[in-house]
Amino acid sequence: MNNQNLLNRSLKSVWHPCTQMKQHETYPLIPIQRGDGVWLYDADGKRYLDSVSSWWVNLFGHNNPRIKDAIKLQLDTLEHVMLAGFTHEPVVELSEKLAMLTGLGHTFYGSDGASATEIALKMSFHYWRNIGKANKTKFISLQNSYHGETLGALSVTDVAIFKDTYAPLLMQSAQMPSPDFRLAEAGEDAETFALRCAQALENYVAAYHTDLAAFIIEPLVQCAAGMGMYHPAYLCRVREICNEYEVHLIADEIAVGFGRTGTMFACEQAANSVSNIADFICLSKGITGGYLPLSAVLTTDKVYQAFYDNSTVRGFLHSHSYTGNPLACSAALATLAIFETDNILQNNQEKSKLIQAKMQVLTDLPIKHLRTPGLQNSGMIFAFDVETQNAQFAKQCYQAALEQELLLRPIANTVYWMPPYTINEDEIDFMVNATLEAVKCSL
Amino acid sequence: MNNQNLLNRSLKSVWHPCTQMKQHETYPLIPIQRGDGVWLYDADGKRYLDSVSSWWVNLFGHNNPRIKDAIKLQLDTLEHVMLAGFTHEPVVELSEKLAMLTGLGHTFYGSDGASATEIALKMSFHYWRNIGKANKTKFISLQNSYHGETLGALSVTDVAIFKDTYAPLLMQSAQMPSPDFRLAEAGEDAETFALRCAQALENYVAAYHTDLAAFIIEPLVQCAAGMGMYHPAYLCRVREICNEYEVHLIADEIAVGFGRTGTMFACEQAANSVSNIADFICLSKGITGGYLPLSAVLTTDKVYQAFYDNSTVRGFLHSHSYTGNPLACSAALATLAIFETDNILQNNQEKSKLIQAKMQVLTDLPIKHLRTPGLQNSGMIFAFDVETQNAQFAKQCYQAALEQELLLRPIANTVYWMPPYTINEDEIDFMVNATLEAVKCSL
Repeated sequence: MNNQNLLNRSLKSVWHPCTQMKQHETYPLIPIQRGDGVWLYDADGKRYLDSVSSWWVNLFGHNNPRIKDAIKLQLDTLEHVMLAGFTHEPVVELSEKLAMLTGLGHTFYGSDGASATEIALKMSFHYWRNIGKANKTKFISLQNSYHGETLGALSVTDVAIFKDTYAPLLMQSAQMPSPDFRLAEAGEDAETFALRCAQALENYVAAYHTDLAAFIIEPLVQCAAGMGMYHPAYLCRVREICNEYEVHLIADEIAVGFGRTGTMFACEQAANSVSNIADFICLSKGITGGYLPLSAVLTTDKVYQAFYDNSTVRGFLHSHSYTGNPLACSAALATLAIFETDNILQNNQEKSKLIQAKMQVLTDLPIKHLRTPGLQNSGMIFAFDVETQNAQFAKQCYQAALEQELLLRPIANTVYWMPPYTINEDEIDFMVNATLEAVKCSL
Repeated sequence: MNNQNLLNRSLKSVWHPCTQMKQHETYPLIPIQRGDGVWLYDADGKRYLDSVSSWWVNLFGHNNPRIKDAIKLQLDTLEHVMLAGFTHEPVVELSEKLAMLTGLGHTFYGSDGASATEIALKMSFHYWRNIGKANKTKFISLQNSYHGETLGALSVTDVAIFKDTYAPLLMQSAQMPSPDFRLAEAGEDAETFALRCAQALENYVAAYHTDLAAFIIEPLVQCAAGMGMYHPAYLCRVREICNEYEVHLIADEIAVGFGRTGTMFACEQAANSVSNIADFICLSKGITGGYLPLSAVLTTDKVYQAFYDNSTVRGFLHSHSYTGNPLACSAALATLAIFETDNILQNNQEKSKLIQAKMQVLTDLPIKHLRTPGLQNSGMIFAFDVETQNAQFAKQCYQAALEQELLLRPIANTVYWMPPYTINEDEIDFMVNATLEAVKCSL
């Protein structure tokens, strides 16, 4: 089996996600045969450094022995049992660990990020209904936000290319000014801008709160918007506004959770616990270390208790067959164990600084908004925006990077890295140099 | 770790799906430690025969060596890579096999059934828009249908207990009379009734087709409605109506696919190929043999070509991080291989007849509508409705069955079996006798 053969077969039978399939006439698909660490290997033996962690899911490298062994062990005991009426140790242990990490004590499971968004929206709406505030039926989100593409999730997403086509099928929702620091006025600092955006939010919420169920937000980084980063002061102020006007805050940490911003969860940079910021947190992507589909929505005792009743219909009757799948939960437990035993968050601080230092070579390019997220710049998301008139920049840069053995996937003019946390110094050098070359020849 | 300990921890931290959690004060959760064949074993060593295949997902028993080994093998090569721009052998092979089985040549992947519904609805809508029929924005479904519980999927679902609460969040959709044979007039045969329902559908479609994108339907069995079965003539007639009025037919075979009705797919009982009935087929549940979350939407060249264009926004840009996950695809390939090598569909015909024969003992109970689905009664879904005034029948029967070492989960007054196909004669006897006892003491 070689690349050409597999690629042709794939184009014939697989409808690839997020893809205008005709573009593969120009930009060939790459068939991957195996992975190891930060590297992916194609069917012709060529390698690619996975600097985007395969859509932001991989944390500890491909072919990770600990996650792999955990799944194999679970395969020998219980692969799956329905979670209605039944339970099992992996789902209980995972829920307990997530509760400890977030301060949110009740976990509901799904299998993808969009479903987590849907679950949080439904739970918020249903909570208000259960406590007698049935008018609270509306949701708000940020401009340029991304929360998934099932119809409910797409209703609170604000990326035109994903949303506009489907407008007739979507709920109405309002978008609030984004605190993405790139949008600040010249000379305005990040905190001032964030608080100005929060003021605009407050004006809206003050006017419409009787109809509002929840505000859903990607804490600290609007990833699909092109790694739009903002000051944590925004989150603190939003929490106060949500308290004052009785509106839920849903923290969508699907992309930013599990250490990407330097803390385990991004909300922790605005308060000492996620539960002091969010009423709901949505998790997915990195939760299984990039191995298996799994998502989770965590919430408070207060929300949970509003559903706990003699009446069946006051319960949250949402379901999906594979909820709490033991194999996915065991991958998640292995992932969390690596965080603990390998001191990941602390080690990432050093690694983040190293990458930032090496990034400086990129400042010779025509770029702006060179950025890393989070507390003391210790996150593991790195981005910059390229100043070019080339409308095909993203595609050409992607292609040029592949020729440099690098998987790099710019979002419009934003070039970013979200590498596996296991990337070593040689690999960082490789990533930086290949990026430099790829950007240069795509301007 | 014993049952009591694990169940207390689960109640504290896990929000179970499809559950009013307070009911677990009366009906205890059961912690499962391992599975083997049709049996689940709890933490105290007690066993339960899984007659519902853990929400209709398990086909070839728990701890199935072939599926387990396939996942382990895949774990040693490639656990995951993003499917945008990349591909891999398991997803290509699976798509080719599904295309051969259905005649629908293009497969788009998700991770749960609801997302498959959402994908099919979005694709249908977008197809009509791409070919210049942007008015076609409405969907219709059957009365009592179930297509999932994310907001788009819930909009075409018609189970009051899941849907009514969320009405303010949902798209409007119209429900057509259900051909469920239990609803026929006295003396009316299944085919006549099915065609009468199809006539009502035609009347609606004739009036509203300019606005209609698609009709979504569970072929042959409306499972969540309480295993409502109907005559395949309905599907043939629906196809003709959809052709005449240019409305897509979406076959939701999430529950009924992969042999449950006697043929590989239920649509095959109305035509020699799925593609002669459906424009889209949604698959999930049994697709991985009950191991891992995976769903798929397959469609025609005609639909695919309407998206194939120089314009990016005419493409289907929907995505989800774990689309086409290699581990889930390898489980699906192992599942399909078992169908082939073990001659499952043919062997199920014998097994189905055996179960039907043994079911006769249940006719001493106050029951009606004793039924099995499909072609020559060769399916692997068995159901009957219990005549009782006991409003708590379903819960009491569920509990009584557990005491008989049987996992049985009646839907209202409908008692059904959807056992793993590997169930043997002793286990069938066990299932029949335990059901008899459980129903008797719940009347």
